Amino acid sequence: MTDCQGDREGTDSPMELYERLNLQGDNVRALKTAKADKADLDAAVQLLLKLKVDYKQMTGQDYKAGCPPSENTAVPNNGPAADCADGEDSVDPWNVSTTNAKGVDYDKLIVRFGSSKVEKELVDRIEKVSGQKPHRFLRRGIFFSHRDMNQVLDAYEKHKSFYLYTGRGPSSEAMHVGHLIPFIFTKWLQDVFDIPLVIQLTDDEKYLWKDLTVEECHRFAVENAKDIIACGFDVNKTFIFSDLDYMGASPDFYRNVVKIQKHVTFNQVKGIFGFTDSDCIGKISFPAIQAAPSFSNSFPQIFGGRKDIQCLIPCAIDQDPYFRMTRDVAPRIGYPKPALLHSTFFPALQGAQTKMSASDANSSIFLTDTPKQIKNKINKHAFSGGKDTVEEHRKHGGNADVDVSFMYLTFFLEDDEQLEKIRQDYTSGALLTGELKKILIETLQPMISQHQERRKQVTDETIKQFMTPRPLNFNN
Amino acid sequence: MTDCQGDREGTDSPMELYERLNLQGDNVRALKTAKADKADLDAAVQLLLKLKVDYKQMTGQDYKAGCPPSENTAVPNNGPAADCADGEDSVDPWNVSTTNAKGVDYDKLIVRFGSSKVEKELVDRIEKVSGQKPHRFLRRGIFFSHRDMNQVLDAYEKHKSFYLYTGRGPSSEAMHVGHLIPFIFTKWLQDVFDIPLVIQLTDDEKYLWKDLTVEECHRFAVENAKDIIACGFDVNKTFIFSDLDYMGASPDFYRNVVKIQKHVTFNQVKGIFGFTDSDCIGKISFPAIQAAPSFSNSFPQIFGGRKDIQCLIPCAIDQDPYFRMTRDVAPRIGYPKPALLHSTFFPALQGAQTKMSASDANSSIFLTDTPKQIKNKINKHAFSGGKDTVEEHRKHGGNADVDVSFMYLTFFLEDDEQLEKIRQDYTSGALLTGELKKILIETLQPMISQHQERRKQVTDETIKQFMTPRPLNFNN
Repeated sequence: MTDCQGDREGTDSPMELYERLNLQGDNVRALKTAKADKADLDAAVQLLLKLKVDYKQMTGQDYKAGCPPSENTAVPNNGPAADCADGEDSVDPWNVSTTNAKGVDYDKLIVRFGSSKVEKELVDRIEKVSGQKPHRFLRRGIFFSHRDMNQVLDAYEKHKSFYLYTGRGPSSEAMHVGHLIPFIFTKWLQDVFDIPLVIQLTDDEKYLWKDLTVEECHRFAVENAKDIIACGFDVNKTFIFSDLDYMGASPDFYRNVVKIQKHVTFNQVKGIFGFTDSDCIGKISFPAIQAAPSFSNSFPQIFGGRKDIQCLIPCAIDQDPYFRMTRDVAPRIGYPKPALLHSTFFPALQGAQTKMSASDANSSIFLTDTPKQIKNKINKHAFSGGKDTVEEHRKHGGNADVDVSFMYLTFFLEDDEQLEKIRQDYTSGALLTGELKKILIETLQPMISQHQERRKQVTDETIKQFMTPRPLNFNN
Repeated sequence: MTDCQGDREGTDSPMELYERLNLQGDNVRALKTAKADKADLDAAVQLLLKLKVDYKQMTGQDYKAGCPPSENTAVPNNGPAADCADGEDSVDPWNVSTTNAKGVDYDKLIVRFGSSKVEKELVDRIEKVSGQKPHRFLRRGIFFSHRDMNQVLDAYEKHKSFYLYTGRGPSSEAMHVGHLIPFIFTKWLQDVFDIPLVIQLTDDEKYLWKDLTVEECHRFAVENAKDIIACGFDVNKTFIFSDLDYMGASPDFYRNVVKIQKHVTFNQVKGIFGFTDSDCIGKISFPAIQAAPSFSNSFPQIFGGRKDIQCLIPCAIDQDPYFRMTRDVAPRIGYPKPALLHSTFFPALQGAQTKMSASDANSSIFLTDTPKQIKNKINKHAFSGGKDTVEEHRKHGGNADVDVSFMYLTFFLEDDEQLEKIRQDYTSGALLTGELKKILIETLQPMISQHQERRKQVTDETIKQFMTPRPLNFNN
């Protein structure tokens, strides 16, 4: 249970402490404005000063509003706070970048975000509680970080169920294999725990952030829903919704949005997301809309108005800022905090220094690619950890840690022993780059073809079923 | 037609010019961030500089972001920008104050807000177009200011109809007679023009601003709806909605909210409403929710998805900041600007220096007051413009301009000649304060009793009818 109390107790991360300082600053200002009782004001100022001392002690830096701790988690999406950054990995919902070919340093990210590492003990426990072999994403550290996962399992063992929430921002029709990671894993969680799942498509977010019309964003949401459904979700346990539809279809959802919006200040979202005064008010209030599905009474059709059912959110780590905010708000509006399971990023074909881009067709394998396109893209673009010549490769071996084809296999090749043998052979030089690429091509080609086949089966009727607010199978 | 083009042409008011400067500043920043074409950036900077020169010329002040023109319209609801104010009348959606016993200087407000005065020509024209004697609120300058009213009448003469939109923030169960002013007038407009009406109850706003629960605010909305219905609105032409309900019941309404939220920056709402970084993100994004009913496609059940039907908003002048913002956004999202008719404030019993407060039972006549309470309140609390003794009063006469009983009669006594005779007699000293108060008491007692009688007739079924999204009688 220790790890599930971290973010309200003395074990704050620098970022969490920074956010608490922002909040306390707001409190003090509000008390001053309201001409509050002197004793109350003094107490609030004392706490503020104490937090500042703690912050200095922890980070070695002075607290400065608008300037997150220097291993900063909130790189603004449009500039001005860049002077707070120190050139390390940068991870927020809109940008992920690192200069390391192995990718982002995830251990550092855990410390910075104040989450907990998914240790072997937790993986074993998930196996024990679910009675199933852990998914390869768990076995291989792809879901590497969590919040409150032990609390979820404790309750589940006592027959208190939970529900799953994940999502996607539908910025285009095209989805690539990396986009499937949270969905593949969430489907596995749904199957082994037999629980309901809600999937949010943030078409409103995409409208606010991109140069797209409301109609385009909504159409992308529906197109993306087809790919999501093709992952094999159970229609009796899954509700997929577009924000543009569901915000206007559920008074209970909107009530939660407003409750969250009342309990988060501009100072806070500025600190967490890097918004500025030039950002539109839609962006500024949007985080509440991504937060709302974390609370079970946002879905009365599923949970009958109950607000006490815990939510577990599998997502890529870049989405964590939204849920740190959500977890801060939750107890103040009488709701349980959502638990989280965070994944690493799926690397671009060109290397792990960047997240893939849906707008660059060569940066990844898309779900619409033909077998030939898959073969060409991997042969042509997949960054290799092999040596320049066959002779050198045979002699010195390749570097699997930076080889994108090998990385992709860790995501998609089910057999642990086979994967380990590939690593050894590649490292020793027994396996050439071309041979490694061939294994990946032969893994992805049938996987994508089968996906395309399943997507074809998704009719308008099926989409309507998944996207209609309705009761789901839920026994608790 | 001249007055209906004012706010996009060269005839901006200082406040409108200030808001255009805020906007242009945002544009320049956005272009810089996007590393836009040099020519585009140069052109944007040139326009910014030109606007700054215009602003200096018009106001004699240098433009400063966050600091509205010194006859400032936007006194912040919580402080910091007070140093921009100059101690004159202060009017915004949350505060109205003046030091003048006659009340706010409305002519100055027209200049400051950049609206147009309701001149006799306009009142005559409304009479001609509607074929009805103008309402006493028009005859007596209570609806004293407008935007684009001639444009509405031009179109109406060409058989292009319009619709009405007004609203109320349900901060308590108690409504006083002052709250009825926009509804009494709106009902008259509905009757004489035979057009649909939407009434927004901003229970979400009250939740965000006050120390109230969502449930309380929603209950107040329904209670207030009963008083509104008791004003006699035609159920076949009137839709009353709570934001907490309708936001979650209409995807089209939410789409308009998001469109507006995309086109308004924090800088702009800071300038218009005086929000600060310590305000919650709910307040910051709320103005879009009050703006959305100004566009006809927010109500597809009434207007069948048409977005070109003009909206006319009768409201107290303190609500104008919302609609200045709305009118600025409208052309950028392809919608017509709403027209407005602005009323003066209804004075508190204690005098015209302040707007009435629903939380002070003695500050006004409430719709729940008994005949005896009405009599006592007026006799005890209504500020008198009479002299201290009967002898002095007979000799010098009273001052009707500051006498609250007389002011109330200008709102509620229908007969122009009788009102004029009362003014003359009071001014000459022929009519004593006690006698004037008696006339007011005898005017209000039956009016309130009848209201209470009509309110009693409002059943749950009636409320449900008014508050259900549905088609209304609308032919255009």
